[in-house]
Amino acid sequence: MRMNDEFSPTIRPEYGRLRAVLVRSRNPLNIGAAARAMSNFGFAHLRVVQPYGPAFREARSAVGAAELLASAEEYGSVAEAVGDCALVVGTTAVGKRSIKHDIVRLEQGAERLREGLAAGNVALLFGSERTGLSNRDFSHCHWLMRIPTCEANISMNLGQAVAVCLYEIVRGAAAAPQAEAQTDTQTGPPGELIEQLTTTLFDALRAAGYLKPKTSAYTEAKLRRRVRRLKLSTEDAEAWLGMLKQMIWKMRRM
Amino acid sequence: MRMNDEFSPTIRPEYGRLRAVLVRSRNPLNIGAAARAMSNFGFAHLRVVQPYGPAFREARSAVGAAELLASAEEYGSVAEAVGDCALVVGTTAVGKRSIKHDIVRLEQGAERLREGLAAGNVALLFGSERTGLSNRDFSHCHWLMRIPTCEANISMNLGQAVAVCLYEIVRGAAAAPQAEAQTDTQTGPPGELIEQLTTTLFDALRAAGYLKPKTSAYTEAKLRRRVRRLKLSTEDAEAWLGMLKQMIWKMRRM
Repeated sequence: MRMNDEFSPTIRPEYGRLRAVLVRSRNPLNIGAAARAMSNFGFAHLRVVQPYGPAFREARSAVGAAELLASAEEYGSVAEAVGDCALVVGTTAVGKRSIKHDIVRLEQGAERLREGLAAGNVALLFGSERTGLSNRDFSHCHWLMRIPTCEANISMNLGQAVAVCLYEIVRGAAAAPQAEAQTDTQTGPPGELIEQLTTTLFDALRAAGYLKPKTSAYTEAKLRRRVRRLKLSTEDAEAWLGMLKQMIWKMRRM
Repeated sequence: MRMNDEFSPTIRPEYGRLRAVLVRSRNPLNIGAAARAMSNFGFAHLRVVQPYGPAFREARSAVGAAELLASAEEYGSVAEAVGDCALVVGTTAVGKRSIKHDIVRLEQGAERLREGLAAGNVALLFGSERTGLSNRDFSHCHWLMRIPTCEANISMNLGQAVAVCLYEIVRGAAAAPQAEAQTDTQTGPPGELIEQLTTTLFDALRAAGYLKPKTSAYTEAKLRRRVRRLKLSTEDAEAWLGMLKQMIWKMRRM
């Protein structure tokens, strides 16, 4: 088993500068889900603008993020919510509205967001479940970002959209690609153990009547290759050897 | 304004081979949310194993994915749900349990999943909201995948976890070159053949007295993993099955 650490994202101090801003969210569950995703990926500052339900802070969907939700800041307008941010970015599924802003794909957008975070506070805006961000909301944004979804269903659930965006910000920040841990399987046991396993298999198959007492060289070679293709680890080879020996013992006891 | 097309993910035909499998989900809303994310990212086949609520098909959270949810297949066990899959992958937040499987980060995992999809059906398992996948569920998996979340809150909401995983499969495909068709040997036989080989091995080991008639779930899970680690081709799996059957026949003839 690997330790958790190597699976944890790199949390950079500047992530503390991100403000996730939910504009006119209607469902408290979604606000809770957004809080949970923020906590999953190491972000802390949630802001809500004119939320529909006043009781959003009790959202049970905020598993593990109750504190984050309790400290969420409530604003009456987008202008106020982004007041301390040097970069303001909106998210959109791109509907039929004519959008004048630059729109970038999430992957490129996340890179720009990380650059922005290195310099100052950044607001990332998510619109309401029904209508998304309005043109008026967009007017506060420097540019827009879109999660690449299918034409057939471009509109994502709010909590899922927040999760995917934050995942991408954190994912892209990971420096060198994680090297895959090596397993014993890749080196394998010594040849003599594999040969012992092979001859034991011959014995078992002869005892079972699957092989004739005098096996042809062709059949032996074929089985030998089959055993080697298993690419067993030492531990596995020894385990299979033990199982075969037990079966041979049983068959010969007759 | 840019056109939508350049923002849409590349939907490859092989995505039709992915089966998202929700095991013992408790909340119908989460099943609906999973369906919605699948539809957002171009996947079609949802399977549920022993869902808690029978009314999951009416989940209102499946916006834009009602059809996908209606065609979801319900199974009584993980074994049945992954029966037609050559590659079975579990997701885990890695808790306190000691996990014997290989665990890879989502990014590397998604790459392996795409390779698997190029060759055959792939099952991606998600556990229940409360407990995740059990060790018994894991025993059906070839390896496990983990979304890199923070130590402070590693556990993601089910619908959000599905969204992030599917996003990563699609995202990575945009960069990676189109996978060439793989040979059967590289991905392995369907899950049901491997499961048949496993249960036949249990029979053989019981006939030999190596296993007690009532085997502990722990021992069974351990052996199940050992068989899956062999990464057999269809031809090899069938050959080993034949050898085991002959030995069983011999041992039982006594």
